[in-house]
Amino acid sequence: MRTTEYFIATQKETPADAEVISHQLMLRAGLIRKLAAGLYTWLPLGLKVLRKVEQVVREEMDRSGALEVSMPMVQPAELWQESGRWEQYGPELLRIKDRHERDFCLGPTHEEVITDLVRNEVKSYKQLPVNLYQIQTKVRDEIRPRFGIMRSREFLMKDAYSFHADSESLGATYEVMHRAYSNIFTRLGLDFRPVIADTGSIGGSASHEFHVLASSGEDDIAFSDQSDYAANVEMAEALAPAGERPAPGAEMQEVATPGVKTIDDLARFLKVDPATTVKTLVVNGEEEGVLVALVLRGDHQLNEIKAEKLAGIANPLTMADEDTVRKTCGAGFGSLGPVGLSIPVIVDRSAAHLADFTCGANREEAHLTGVNWERDCALARVEDLREVMAGDPSPDGMGTLQIKRGIEVGHIFQLGTKYSEAMDATVLDENGKSVTMAMGCYGIGVSRIVAAAIEQNHDDRGITWPAAMAPFELVIVPLNMHKSEAVAECALALYQQFREAGVEVLLDDRNERPGVKFADMELIGIPHRLVVGDRALADDNIEYKGRRDDEAQLLSRDSVFADVMRKLDR
Amino acid sequence: MRTTEYFIATQKETPADAEVISHQLMLRAGLIRKLAAGLYTWLPLGLKVLRKVEQVVREEMDRSGALEVSMPMVQPAELWQESGRWEQYGPELLRIKDRHERDFCLGPTHEEVITDLVRNEVKSYKQLPVNLYQIQTKVRDEIRPRFGIMRSREFLMKDAYSFHADSESLGATYEVMHRAYSNIFTRLGLDFRPVIADTGSIGGSASHEFHVLASSGEDDIAFSDQSDYAANVEMAEALAPAGERPAPGAEMQEVATPGVKTIDDLARFLKVDPATTVKTLVVNGEEEGVLVALVLRGDHQLNEIKAEKLAGIANPLTMADEDTVRKTCGAGFGSLGPVGLSIPVIVDRSAAHLADFTCGANREEAHLTGVNWERDCALARVEDLREVMAGDPSPDGMGTLQIKRGIEVGHIFQLGTKYSEAMDATVLDENGKSVTMAMGCYGIGVSRIVAAAIEQNHDDRGITWPAAMAPFELVIVPLNMHKSEAVAECALALYQQFREAGVEVLLDDRNERPGVKFADMELIGIPHRLVVGDRALADDNIEYKGRRDDEAQLLSRDSVFADVMRKLDR
Repeated sequence: MRTTEYFIATQKETPADAEVISHQLMLRAGLIRKLAAGLYTWLPLGLKVLRKVEQVVREEMDRSGALEVSMPMVQPAELWQESGRWEQYGPELLRIKDRHERDFCLGPTHEEVITDLVRNEVKSYKQLPVNLYQIQTKVRDEIRPRFGIMRSREFLMKDAYSFHADSESLGATYEVMHRAYSNIFTRLGLDFRPVIADTGSIGGSASHEFHVLASSGEDDIAFSDQSDYAANVEMAEALAPAGERPAPGAEMQEVATPGVKTIDDLARFLKVDPATTVKTLVVNGEEEGVLVALVLRGDHQLNEIKAEKLAGIANPLTMADEDTVRKTCGAGFGSLGPVGLSIPVIVDRSAAHLADFTCGANREEAHLTGVNWERDCALARVEDLREVMAGDPSPDGMGTLQIKRGIEVGHIFQLGTKYSEAMDATVLDENGKSVTMAMGCYGIGVSRIVAAAIEQNHDDRGITWPAAMAPFELVIVPLNMHKSEAVAECALALYQQFREAGVEVLLDDRNERPGVKFADMELIGIPHRLVVGDRALADDNIEYKGRRDDEAQLLSRDSVFADVMRKLDR
Repeated sequence: MRTTEYFIATQKETPADAEVISHQLMLRAGLIRKLAAGLYTWLPLGLKVLRKVEQVVREEMDRSGALEVSMPMVQPAELWQESGRWEQYGPELLRIKDRHERDFCLGPTHEEVITDLVRNEVKSYKQLPVNLYQIQTKVRDEIRPRFGIMRSREFLMKDAYSFHADSESLGATYEVMHRAYSNIFTRLGLDFRPVIADTGSIGGSASHEFHVLASSGEDDIAFSDQSDYAANVEMAEALAPAGERPAPGAEMQEVATPGVKTIDDLARFLKVDPATTVKTLVVNGEEEGVLVALVLRGDHQLNEIKAEKLAGIANPLTMADEDTVRKTCGAGFGSLGPVGLSIPVIVDRSAAHLADFTCGANREEAHLTGVNWERDCALARVEDLREVMAGDPSPDGMGTLQIKRGIEVGHIFQLGTKYSEAMDATVLDENGKSVTMAMGCYGIGVSRIVAAAIEQNHDDRGITWPAAMAPFELVIVPLNMHKSEAVAECALALYQQFREAGVEVLLDDRNERPGVKFADMELIGIPHRLVVGDRALADDNIEYKGRRDDEAQLLSRDSVFADVMRKLDR
């Protein structure tokens, strides 16, 4: 392709309303243009990248045995009423009325439609398992669309749904999808982690998110430095410290702590390490009116998701009202502790490992030092309550946890029978008995991958695409092409040669200064660049530079084609 | 692909609500399923066909130099207000409000969005021409969706829009698109015609529709049996009969014609050929209160589109009120004629060629015979007023017109400046002067092509796909595969061999009776079939049958691969 016949729409200025780097670079490189809030047009260059991602996703889904379908975007309300989501779903669900005043929605997902299809078409366990996917533009009416295509109102999604006669079959397909997703992100050249994710209110039995690691990510990912273990920070198990709890060495003493409200205050006031203190949080119990105390080490953070899953605790988790706490426990939030507490106490594993610790005295502006479990207060119930931190041992016993930020680009989920039960999707099993199908669902944010890849792959000059995602593999920049016949001839010959070899090559034949061309092509992020100029040509040389290289190098005119083909892995 | 790992969803019964054959066969062959009125899910088999069509369209558009983009489906009302279409467009335009109560629509076309993009990005004539296209699901809220995907509410469309500094450039791109469209439909193996179409109220300068010929089509196409000439019947020019008008041979006489209202009545009553009579229609003129008489041969039909374009006639065309006609002309509709008429008369070319004709006498229940132009009544204005008929000479002077029915699958249109003027889309020309860009738009109904192809290619057993559109090229049907090892081994070996050769082959490994398999595969329309059975295998033979063949033939096991590859043009 020649740039003069293409649609190059680079911009020098960083757009004012683009907060994240991928949004800025996608606008500046001319990959997308904004039509309205959360609505973007993909320009030719951006669409080329998107189509490459789409094709990798399609190929790996096909290879996994999934079958591609295409369901309508417009979905009748009746199905959503059947599943119960018509009422449950928030205003992100764009509800519309047709000309006959019938209710429809623009579906952000297709569980209802696919379940309706499969319950009509599949009657016997012999037809199972089946895994159907589509790659489709979805609409979600975000309250505040932002970050360009990262959180837009229209986005390209791959959604797959599998159906099974039993949960073993679901588990097997789930594993197949896990592998397919790993293949996809590996082929795209992204640094990613499949992480154990919360199954949330759906209560399915297993769920993994696939995250592209990037410092701008919205999620914290904990992963081992020595194994495959990775989990959302919320989901990572915090192990108990190794070894026995040390024996008591100090006497329990009460100290006045005027004005001390937080662990930081306490550590400063008493000159102690926060890791030798505990904090006591009071939450509402499962039973109305019952309070429960949660005790954690002073330097640890409560993980609410872990806590609300525990027996005896209200789900969702709610903190107790301070007045009620003061009445029941004798002190307000800043001065609570496990000693002499009359409500049930749950102690985090790490806090349970402390000896001679400091805690609130359950009297205002007073704390206890030298406190020890068993001796000074009971240790009735120990649980995993806290969020993991960098440096914690990996829960799989191998290595140490690191924490990095990730951008969620995929999600696989064992739904179980949530939809099939609500919508009565059954098959006859081997004994002629009707059984409810088990379901899995598997999503990939196809357009989101483009933005995530840029968040992970850029420098101060622009995008540094992984090879598989670059819009063009190679750009040939002739210098002074419109004046030098030698340059024009050589550049065109090379262009032709690479084209015939099936290389996606761009010839920058614009009548622009070299600096403008170089800056544009670096901004766009084409991985390989050849510069054809009179000076180097005089010595039969062509200049080569890889997008991530610091320095250009000279290649001989005779070997340049073979050299570049080697760099392209051809 | 093995059928046991695929999604085969054939049906024996013809669905009750499917009126046209393509709709029936798409449901029966398991290509689509209905979700709601006008909303269909494409099953794996149907989607394979759709993707093939899509790919041919994309390749030919790319080859033509057009660049692919992807615009949002959800479009802000502001742009449609700017072009004036927000008010003009009927309820097919699905208007929606987002969660902030802002107006949007689900765009059935994208003239506004693309014009907005190009006016922002293109500033100089040097950046022109540019031709941008997308392949996208569109929504049109049809009042009565029908004929399956032929007239559905969601459909896949290729829409392209070109921008030009002048109309010569527009004309050149229009020709390029005309060729690209011809390539597309030729590659798809369809019998089609590019036909001259009405530019309608938009008033562009040129427009062609591309029609797939099929007896179930909604449009009448007139085309020459000896040239490329083809036009919508409404648009085809009716030439004047050859030679001079014959000299008068009879005297004009008035005859009483009691009860005669129509030309048929008249021909029967007077025992004359309708082709020797004229009928006189009265329409409203351009000026309020003025009536105009249109005179055609008795066997010809008025073409309203031709009539309403003529100077002096109201546009759109309306027939005059009969009471007014009676008052002005002396008789009602059944007894009018050009002799002595006081209102302006326009005579069709063929009627103007008659001598000794019969017409109404402008007195109730009376007609004149032996009438002659010039001698008995003036012949002030002769125009082309009638619709062409089969057998008419082709307007390009070559051959005779035939008339067949067609299904519109593509449309190319020189829009001129309709949108660019309304939306102020200008560029600077060579002299630095601001000029309004000229535009063309080019549509293809990608999903509609699938239905049109079936309307053109089917028999009483099912679909007979053109090679380029078939979901699979070849099916191998093993007989008794689950009992005969020889059959299983041979079928699997062939399956493997064709797969490795890149052939899209289906192995029907279902445990079903041969009759069921044959019927399914013929219904689905796979072009080539191999049957592997013990009886033929005993003689080292495999049975081959082409989908359009009457008889099966035996091929030698040794040469079957090479023979079939030849049939596949590999």
